[in-house]
Amino acid sequence: MSDAPETPPILLLNGPNLNMLGVRQPEVYGADTLEDVVESTRRTAAEFGLTVRALQTNHEGEMIDAVHAARGEIGGIVINPGGWTHTSVALADALVVPEVPVVEVHISNVHAREPFRQHSYISPIAAGVIVGCGTAGYEFAVRRIAALMGL
Amino acid sequence: MSDAPETPPILLLNGPNLNMLGVRQPEVYGADTLEDVVESTRRTAAEFGLTVRALQTNHEGEMIDAVHAARGEIGGIVINPGGWTHTSVALADALVVPEVPVVEVHISNVHAREPFRQHSYISPIAAGVIVGCGTAGYEFAVRRIAALMGL
Amino acid sequence: MSDAPETPPILLLNGPNLNMLGVRQPEVYGADTLEDVVESTRRTAAEFGLTVRALQTNHEGEMIDAVHAARGEIGGIVINPGGWTHTSVALADALVVPEVPVVEVHISNVHAREPFRQHSYISPIAAGVIVGCGTAGYEFAVRRIAALMGL
Amino acid sequence: MSDAPETPPILLLNGPNLNMLGVRQPEVYGADTLEDVVESTRRTAAEFGLTVRALQTNHEGEMIDAVHAARGEIGGIVINPGGWTHTSVALADALVVPEVPVVEVHISNVHAREPFRQHSYISPIAAGVIVGCGTAGYEFAVRRIAALMGL
Amino acid sequence: MSDAPETPPILLLNGPNLNMLGVRQPEVYGADTLEDVVESTRRTAAEFGLTVRALQTNHEGEMIDAVHAARGEIGGIVINPGGWTHTSVALADALVVPEVPVVEVHISNVHAREPFRQHSYISPIAAGVIVGCGTAGYEFAVRRIAALMGL
Amino acid sequence: MSDAPETPPILLLNGPNLNMLGVRQPEVYGADTLEDVVESTRRTAAEFGLTVRALQTNHEGEMIDAVHAARGEIGGIVINPGGWTHTSVALADALVVPEVPVVEVHISNVHAREPFRQHSYISPIAAGVIVGCGTAGYEFAVRRIAALMGL
Amino acid sequence: MSDAPETPPILLLNGPNLNMLGVRQPEVYGADTLEDVVESTRRTAAEFGLTVRALQTNHEGEMIDAVHAARGEIGGIVINPGGWTHTSVALADALVVPEVPVVEVHISNVHAREPFRQHSYISPIAAGVIVGCGTAGYEFAVRRIAALMGL
Amino acid sequence: MSDAPETPPILLLNGPNLNMLGVRQPEVYGADTLEDVVESTRRTAAEFGLTVRALQTNHEGEMIDAVHAARGEIGGIVINPGGWTHTSVALADALVVPEVPVVEVHISNVHAREPFRQHSYISPIAAGVIVGCGTAGYEFAVRRIAALMGL
Amino acid sequence: MSDAPETPPILLLNGPNLNMLGVRQPEVYGADTLEDVVESTRRTAAEFGLTVRALQTNHEGEMIDAVHAARGEIGGIVINPGGWTHTSVALADALVVPEVPVVEVHISNVHAREPFRQHSYISPIAAGVIVGCGTAGYEFAVRRIAALMGL
Amino acid sequence: MSDAPETPPILLLNGPNLNMLGVRQPEVYGADTLEDVVESTRRTAAEFGLTVRALQTNHEGEMIDAVHAARGEIGGIVINPGGWTHTSVALADALVVPEVPVVEVHISNVHAREPFRQHSYISPIAAGVIVGCGTAGYEFAVRRIAALMGL
Amino acid sequence: MSDAPETPPILLLNGPNLNMLGVRQPEVYGADTLEDVVESTRRTAAEFGLTVRALQTNHEGEMIDAVHAARGEIGGIVINPGGWTHTSVALADALVVPEVPVVEVHISNVHAREPFRQHSYISPIAAGVIVGCGTAGYEFAVRRIAALMGL
Amino acid sequence: MSDAPETPPILLLNGPNLNMLGVRQPEVYGADTLEDVVESTRRTAAEFGLTVRALQTNHEGEMIDAVHAARGEIGGIVINPGGWTHTSVALADALVVPEVPVVEVHISNVHAREPFRQHSYISPIAAGVIVGCGTAGYEFAVRRIAALMGL
Repeated sequence: MSDAPETPPILLLNGPNLNMLGVRQPEVYGADTLEDVVESTRRTAAEFGLTVRALQTNHEGEMIDAVHAARGEIGGIVINPGGWTHTSVALADALVVPEVPVVEVHISNVHAREPFRQHSYISPIAAGVIVGCGTAGYEFAVRRIAALMGL
Repeated sequence: MSDAPETPPILLLNGPNLNMLGVRQPEVYGADTLEDVVESTRRTAAEFGLTVRALQTNHEGEMIDAVHAARGEIGGIVINPGGWTHTSVALADALVVPEVPVVEVHISNVHAREPFRQHSYISPIAAGVIVGCGTAGYEFAVRRIAALMGL
Repeated sequence: MSDAPETPPILLLNGPNLNMLGVRQPEVYGADTLEDVVESTRRTAAEFGLTVRALQTNHEGEMIDAVHAARGEIGGIVINPGGWTHTSVALADALVVPEVPVVEVHISNVHAREPFRQHSYISPIAAGVIVGCGTAGYEFAVRRIAALMGL
Repeated sequence: MSDAPETPPILLLNGPNLNMLGVRQPEVYGADTLEDVVESTRRTAAEFGLTVRALQTNHEGEMIDAVHAARGEIGGIVINPGGWTHTSVALADALVVPEVPVVEVHISNVHAREPFRQHSYISPIAAGVIVGCGTAGYEFAVRRIAALMGL
Repeated sequence: MSDAPETPPILLLNGPNLNMLGVRQPEVYGADTLEDVVESTRRTAAEFGLTVRALQTNHEGEMIDAVHAARGEIGGIVINPGGWTHTSVALADALVVPEVPVVEVHISNVHAREPFRQHSYISPIAAGVIVGCGTAGYEFAVRRIAALMGL
Repeated sequence: MSDAPETPPILLLNGPNLNMLGVRQPEVYGADTLEDVVESTRRTAAEFGLTVRALQTNHEGEMIDAVHAARGEIGGIVINPGGWTHTSVALADALVVPEVPVVEVHISNVHAREPFRQHSYISPIAAGVIVGCGTAGYEFAVRRIAALMGL
Repeated sequence: MSDAPETPPILLLNGPNLNMLGVRQPEVYGADTLEDVVESTRRTAAEFGLTVRALQTNHEGEMIDAVHAARGEIGGIVINPGGWTHTSVALADALVVPEVPVVEVHISNVHAREPFRQHSYISPIAAGVIVGCGTAGYEFAVRRIAALMGL
Repeated sequence: MSDAPETPPILLLNGPNLNMLGVRQPEVYGADTLEDVVESTRRTAAEFGLTVRALQTNHEGEMIDAVHAARGEIGGIVINPGGWTHTSVALADALVVPEVPVVEVHISNVHAREPFRQHSYISPIAAGVIVGCGTAGYEFAVRRIAALMGL
Repeated sequence: MSDAPETPPILLLNGPNLNMLGVRQPEVYGADTLEDVVESTRRTAAEFGLTVRALQTNHEGEMIDAVHAARGEIGGIVINPGGWTHTSVALADALVVPEVPVVEVHISNVHAREPFRQHSYISPIAAGVIVGCGTAGYEFAVRRIAALMGL
Repeated sequence: MSDAPETPPILLLNGPNLNMLGVRQPEVYGADTLEDVVESTRRTAAEFGLTVRALQTNHEGEMIDAVHAARGEIGGIVINPGGWTHTSVALADALVVPEVPVVEVHISNVHAREPFRQHSYISPIAAGVIVGCGTAGYEFAVRRIAALMGL
Repeated sequence: MSDAPETPPILLLNGPNLNMLGVRQPEVYGADTLEDVVESTRRTAAEFGLTVRALQTNHEGEMIDAVHAARGEIGGIVINPGGWTHTSVALADALVVPEVPVVEVHISNVHAREPFRQHSYISPIAAGVIVGCGTAGYEFAVRRIAALMGL
Repeated sequence: MSDAPETPPILLLNGPNLNMLGVRQPEVYGADTLEDVVESTRRTAAEFGLTVRALQTNHEGEMIDAVHAARGEIGGIVINPGGWTHTSVALADALVVPEVPVVEVHISNVHAREPFRQHSYISPIAAGVIVGCGTAGYEFAVRRIAALMGL
């Protein structure tokens, strides 16, 4: 999937309900759809000569499998874990398997919502966390990954 | 699936382990099987001219997908979330997507069991919660949904 | 008060402030008055050949006395304990005295309100709990009691 | 699968990320792969005339389905629930369905890691728990199951 | 009781044990009796052309009944809830029924006493809270109510 | 009520549900009725030349009124506060008014029951607490009061 | 600054952000400016023959210095500690240095806001606390100080 | 040690620091010495034809050994566990070994002291608990044991 | 300071100890100095035609004063609150005064450090939060502010 | 005691009340006595050419002394700390002195008992923990120690 | 032991595992042995004409006995309670018996270690606490005791 | 200030309210003034050939600035952080900047005061902590610093 060995792709992961972006509560999450997010992520990545391998799934196991499969093939992970942020130790454990930097993204400001949304199992194993920057957060995450990859 | 646009069906969701109803601990959950539950739910719904779209699954992602797919096609949701009640933010987030009333059902009285069973991620986004009424709880839930649909 | 020994009446208890139903915050509690609730409860009970002995009081001691006096004379209890739900160990202790099934009803969804409204001293000793189903919750409670009475 | 009815097989379950054994953090989990674990578990089981039905999955639903399907066909369960240990009520509920002894295994000493790893939803329904004994923990678990089966 | 419809009276409520003012622990609560408090409250109210309807009771139900009865007849409530401050959800629920401003008064500084005295169920529904100003706190409360009534 | 000024009576208080002694759960509380308890308390008191003024009520306000009225007329208080033990700050505040020793009695061992039964608002203001000694606890309490009265 | 030794002035302290009164969120804090507050405080003080020494600062150290400097020169302190209420042990320690009564004022009802606003380091060392009475709270505080000064 | 098999002796246990009774803080614990306590306990026991086997020790192991050794030889245990009350699971585990009733005694009212003194590992396995009755608490405990022995 | 009224400057705030950037623990915070940060922030801002008004201070009051003074003069705030993140309610209250978007930046991943570093008083009032992206976090913050300003 | 320097013995420690094994609650702990446990531990150890130095004591100090004395003389420790598991920091500190692997054993499943039995001071310093495997847990522990000794 | 009545000796107590000083983790506790500590404590004491009565024990009961025996014979206590710091109410109770000043010493900085090491039962009854000053802490403690003895 | 480069001075820091030493509550803090403390600290330092650079301030920012400025110029820090002990993360962060040993001093025994005084943000980054030794604590701190400087 990555034809240049020195620039492995970025894995872009979107967790449960993010397939409904642009449909669900646009006043909270904005009008961008998941396709828009993937597209703009690709554009930012391309600035650094990077490609993007994208997955959205509502199945935790599918995401974990994808993370495992990416071991050795990717240069970094951009993840919006959705509701799993607060509940999935299994996903957090999986994300350390590829041994590449992980940047966690949340579109809305989770710190201004329910208390249970303020704890993340992912953040302690992430390199960076970007919250409340709308869909631009994905772009920032790619830039951070690229920097950590030395690009 | 719903041939009359003015009366969209009810989505009946049963979470993990509820396929074992009537088999597992009948002294706690009674002798009714899941088939009995679905059947009697259909009968109650029919009193209001409503049909029922039923799903039982042990896969969280499958249930989330079904909830998304039902957006715009259903009039309400009756859900027994089983063990996900206490752990799934992702499911709670999904249940608000269809923008229809949700009634949560628990067959046994969860308040008389382990402390961790007394917190529900679903209840705050539900219209109603029915606990400890045996399988009749599903019937009550349908009646509540019907009332909220103005039937 | 119950002229047929084989079908003792149901005791319908409404706790503090429920005399203001229909007056206080109708946007939360609906337009039904306490009289409407008692009347519709009687109608549902009559379907099962049951009568209803109704009490609303703002005096905890009065309700405890009534529960004691009902020992041996009733077949079940439907109770909306109002604010005592969260504070009265004495009422919970009283409700086990008649040794009949108790169903707890809350008109609004208490799980979507202040945190202190999410703990109930009554629920652990109840057979069932019905929350957020409006005044129809009383009807469901009667149906559940009737079923537990074998009617 | 088990040709001798009096000696039903043991169900060996490995949860999320355990497919990466030997690959992920060998300094923590050792050099044994999942295949090595399954193989040595089979060898220990064979000492008691027992066979092993093995499953590793990153999909919670798949594991729950397998546990249900095993009802009536197995003599005991050896499970390393991985990250689900701390988060899955649904899996704990499933594990009581077969009504056979369950022994929980953790390869590393979870008590010397993050605080959240010290709570297990599985332990209270387990017959035994073996922690920090490396992959030998699986062997000990089989021995315990065999003893509980009277072998 | 209020002969001028445009200036409804103030309801002055004193909860349990406040009938013992001046008798019980004068070194904590001062030498003023309840009669002194009522009298001086009346004097302050009269400055604004207001009358006072006073009630002290040790019976929670009696106070709730009085609050309900005052709906539509009063312009504000001054309440020293005594020990119910920390325990009565029912009273807090009643106090919102009249839909008039409520000012909570405590004679001594409850913040310098036992920890359980630092939580009040009344404060969140009050307009103001006056603590540790001795019996002058009632006077301040009347002034605040009068201001909120536009007097 | 006390004809000898130098030996004022003991006030014996029983809180909510204690009128059901001997009727409610005799396997927990024993076969003695409230009348038996009062009678045996009188007998023990008489050993010290003391009389007993007894009150059982399910109305908190009634008990507080009785405690106030007893100020200056009694030598000590024996109280089984029932469910109010855990919830009534108002009663605890009242019990310090008479400025005589208070001994708290619980018939069953509350420490072996629900966690919420292990906190008492009464104990910190009591001279002594007697738990789990059956109805003999009242006798011990009288003996302790008598000793504190110098008898 | 106080030319009559028998009537030392009152120290009026306003903490961080209170210089923005009337500007910041007038719907919460009202239209009065800090100057209005100081002026009306002076007027109330003058009723008792008292002068006012006023300080508003956003620098904690400056306020502590001012409190120290006032030792021996003032008769009481009226303080609205703003955000330091919940965080400054140093300020609370300083306020006991002058050994004069302190009354704490909050313009809005902090008990109806975020949970962290319900704890005050100042309240336990204050003589009185006045909350949610608008800018009239300062006036009440002066009256309380004057009373404690015997005026 | 017990010459009549039908009336086994009572084991009287006093934990750490109780050898200093009468010496340490007599204003808290009274003037009675440990010898006085043992003597008066013997006198009360003798009323029921019971003898007393007494031990005071500051060594937890010694007390546990004594409890074990008493298995089969005693009719009940009266114990003042001193500071071990709050810290010794080992002692609580030992006290169930003899399978006789245990009554826990505390001379002072521990509920009016430091919070850590309000939790007891012993109370849940005790038949009764007597607190704050001075050294008379031992006498009451003996009476309770005797009653439980049917004497 | 801002010569074009339609594009007000961004306020760049750095809290305590950030003057030591590049000096203190470069292995944690990197080799960039505060001057480097300010310079690169200016460069990014210039891409959007924005200027930057920068302040670093170890004095909380000074920062609050600067925030107040900026009201009406700036288009957004980029703030690294340093240690005040976890302790300053006063600063959080100040940051809402200018009524412009605030983006909070932390250079290192605070979620992987001490537990007390995981609570921020600033985040709930921020539009966005960027953590663990090194000094590039400031650049991302400027981009977010620019987007919120419609640039 | 160990005649072959290259195979030092295993230290087998049993804490308080374990001398009562087989006597106390055999339905919980089984019929094996402590002697049986020591004997079977020796047999397992002998499989690896290891001897066993065994100690059971109810005296914490005695066990600590024994652990110290074993420094430099043993190859590993198998310990069932009994009630000290939950309360003894001193024992945990001692167990690191010999600098050999420690395996903690509990015969019953402590995770299905009282909450306080779920915290262990020993587990964080242990190499492994074996719970609920009956007396076979000791055997597993020896096998684990032997493996860690390279046998 | 002390031949001059006006200068009673200092009691130097070292709790569990401190006999291993210099042997156990010298990188944490330093190379000084217990003998060195006792010797240097004696030297410092001698500067004030004081002698030292030293005890190290791993037996809590032995230490309590020694403290009791010292009543009336010593002028102060220097104690390093080791692991009992965090668990022994009995020792804390004993230390107040001699009614002399107590200074608590910890060689390493317990505040930088596990959370459970940050609570001490001894500190509230101590005159002073010296932490993390190495074995010099004992010397400081002696100096403080001497000062409190007026030497 | 330090004429011998090899013996840099000690920085002596006193936080808020310590300028009132000897004035404020001498029964708690003693009669020594801050000048006395500085003087005696200098005398002790001189024993080791050390000078002292002293600062007392009530302005947190001023202390942080002083700590930064001392980087590279001092050999150690003696600090009594006063009320900032419990609230200032910023000061704790600053104190690690100079990379020299820090010893924290509290004159009174904070462990015997309010619970909030028992947590220190400074202690975890300190080398040592000296509590309740009066003003002699400063002397001990200097001795400890000198030892850590190898003097």
